[in-house]
Amino acid sequence: MRSFGIGLLGLGTVGRGVYRVLQENGEIIASRLGARLEVVKILVRDPKKDRGLAVPPELLTTDPQEVISHPAVDIVVEVMGGVEPARRYVLQALEQGKMVVTANKDLLALHGRELFDVASAARTDLFFEASVAGGIPIIKILKESLAANRIREIIGIINGTTNYILTRMSEEGLDFALALSEAQKHGYAEADPRADIEGLDAARKIAILASIAFNSRVTFPEVYAEGISRIEPADIKYARELGYTIKLLALARETEKGLEVRVHPALVSFKHPLASVRDVFNAVFVRGDAVGETMFYGRGAGELPTASAVVGDIMTAARQLLHGVKGMWGCTCFEQKPLVPVEETESCFYLRIKAVDRPGVLAGIAGAFGRHEVSLAAVIQKTTGEVADLVLVTHRVKEANLRAAEEELKKLPTVEAVANVIRVLEE
Amino acid sequence: MRSFGIGLLGLGTVGRGVYRVLQENGEIIASRLGARLEVVKILVRDPKKDRGLAVPPELLTTDPQEVISHPAVDIVVEVMGGVEPARRYVLQALEQGKMVVTANKDLLALHGRELFDVASAARTDLFFEASVAGGIPIIKILKESLAANRIREIIGIINGTTNYILTRMSEEGLDFALALSEAQKHGYAEADPRADIEGLDAARKIAILASIAFNSRVTFPEVYAEGISRIEPADIKYARELGYTIKLLALARETEKGLEVRVHPALVSFKHPLASVRDVFNAVFVRGDAVGETMFYGRGAGELPTASAVVGDIMTAARQLLHGVKGMWGCTCFEQKPLVPVEETESCFYLRIKAVDRPGVLAGIAGAFGRHEVSLAAVIQKTTGEVADLVLVTHRVKEANLRAAEEELKKLPTVEAVANVIRVLEE
Repeated sequence: MRSFGIGLLGLGTVGRGVYRVLQENGEIIASRLGARLEVVKILVRDPKKDRGLAVPPELLTTDPQEVISHPAVDIVVEVMGGVEPARRYVLQALEQGKMVVTANKDLLALHGRELFDVASAARTDLFFEASVAGGIPIIKILKESLAANRIREIIGIINGTTNYILTRMSEEGLDFALALSEAQKHGYAEADPRADIEGLDAARKIAILASIAFNSRVTFPEVYAEGISRIEPADIKYARELGYTIKLLALARETEKGLEVRVHPALVSFKHPLASVRDVFNAVFVRGDAVGETMFYGRGAGELPTASAVVGDIMTAARQLLHGVKGMWGCTCFEQKPLVPVEETESCFYLRIKAVDRPGVLAGIAGAFGRHEVSLAAVIQKTTGEVADLVLVTHRVKEANLRAAEEELKKLPTVEAVANVIRVLEE
Repeated sequence: MRSFGIGLLGLGTVGRGVYRVLQENGEIIASRLGARLEVVKILVRDPKKDRGLAVPPELLTTDPQEVISHPAVDIVVEVMGGVEPARRYVLQALEQGKMVVTANKDLLALHGRELFDVASAARTDLFFEASVAGGIPIIKILKESLAANRIREIIGIINGTTNYILTRMSEEGLDFALALSEAQKHGYAEADPRADIEGLDAARKIAILASIAFNSRVTFPEVYAEGISRIEPADIKYARELGYTIKLLALARETEKGLEVRVHPALVSFKHPLASVRDVFNAVFVRGDAVGETMFYGRGAGELPTASAVVGDIMTAARQLLHGVKGMWGCTCFEQKPLVPVEETESCFYLRIKAVDRPGVLAGIAGAFGRHEVSLAAVIQKTTGEVADLVLVTHRVKEANLRAAEEELKKLPTVEAVANVIRVLEE
């Protein structure tokens, strides 16, 4: 039986998972593949560090070239994360014609084009299943299984930290700060949680998914992102009364005006399949012109789920090597479609307004909406003392109009505050 | 740009969908693939039949050899269904070294081994994504994306007809007969609905999925199947009180004793991701040792969803041809694991018993259970007039013990009838 050499760049959480899966499932992997996978070299910062893992010390090195340029390494696996030096190492490996597998969303969402250009010139392949949604094989699904479809939209819950926080707020009534500190206690949120809670992590991932689905490069800085820190228990309560839960969504859509790619919290109907995605789970809802509605659900992070995706990619690469083919998967971004600015997009909106409880208040608010062509689908009014909570849901409206109406509302003498504005996912 | 010739065997619902997708999405398919796909010949029974589709008449033929042996046909697509003559045609195409794509579950679930042996000898490939769960790419997910995992279990809702019927019974309170006739009216159930409602369609599909997941050939006749015709509105009502919905599940599990592969209705907790799969939708829940819990959801049938899977396979085959590789995907059944007889399997059970409302009834029933080592997790008693509905949920118990207890219950003078026994999916 033939054997292929694996070089690991990194032995952190994901690297450890990859090593474990290759060891523990080595026999069944070899039988399924018809070839053995052997870890030849591993780049680490500190070879002496205790990783709770029995790795033969001769596999470890602090010199990246010993991995990338090792003659027995056929497949280089980048699981170190971050942009540099990961970018440099991946480029070097590709330039040498090695197959490369990466789990690195930061790298892909910024430098995808450069990486694929180099891979293509060297007639080799770059695989990146683990870069989005951990164990959910959404990259292969979009690139291969659904390739016969024009993709209409992708709606993802692709950040486990924020989904955990919103689940705790919804099911236990916690406020945002408490739910965040619980997430940190469980290791689901970092000490500096901004990349997650401000939607930046999800923005990187949806940039990658949109690029594949719409065959047009979308990079991280182009994605509009809004986080969840302004969601209050009151919003969750009113949303539930209206038949919705609140989720952080990453959306990518093709419209006549171009691509809409953005991340923000949204009210999701309890009837939508995404509504039942709880805790740290991820899911990606995809609508294609032929396949219709599909959804793919699983763990979006963690040592072993991510390793499942990485080792799946390693097996794909090895199967190609076994059959003597490299360079099967070029860059799929063969078009360049315009991105629609967020002000030009259309959504339904939920607004929670604090108003003085006085006759004519609703009329004044409705008038401001009317002047900006915003029409209302639902209204809830709850009065406590002298202040009324007015909760409004609009019909579909251009974002710029909604924002103009919001500015006008804020100036009304009867309106104390526009406490929150959240988009509503249309069914 | 290179072009590959497609020969279609059949132009029924799925064949029409395949033709439409290849025409309507031809440009984007060519761009993604780097090659054109051209339909060269189509086998039909009656070339004059109006199919509501503009097909150039010179493409149609009634002679299978004009498709299979046509020199310009690189990929033969079998969408005629049924075992014969589909089997013969597929074998002929494989023997000639053509790539073959099929949507035929009946064929795969009976003759998988023969087909793969012939494909392997001819160094070509057989693709069958559309044979299970329509547009959900579960075959590629199991064979490739999750290939690094030991699969622990697969639990599928893979028959749209029965899921529609059970959804209508649950949400509208219909009885089985009425829900079935509604399904027939909508075209979701055939005039002869037995293959669906008796679980045989799901049994064919789970045989295919189990074979892939556990690398051990499972054929249709080996799968235990129980249908949904005995489910009554009372069962759905009591299940809901206990926190469950009722679904027709297709299960495949690897245990220490061997493989368990079966189809039957089951109580599914509302918290389980499968509980929210409604109407004709399908979903396949997969648990792997590395990836953990995943679920894949979408339309399990219909012209275009099935065509999405077939054309996805055609693109995979064409990509290989473009790179000069055939025979990448051998048969994955390299082991032969024993199947566990259903009496030896363990489940939790729901029982609905009609009993005389008299002191000591429950004690008698509990005694019968106790003598067969069946212990109870929940009891509901509802009395109407002189008859009590006793609803019991057991802890995990060997099926043979449960059946022995059931026989003893039936002989108790206080028990009028064991109205239903349904398995409960453990969380």
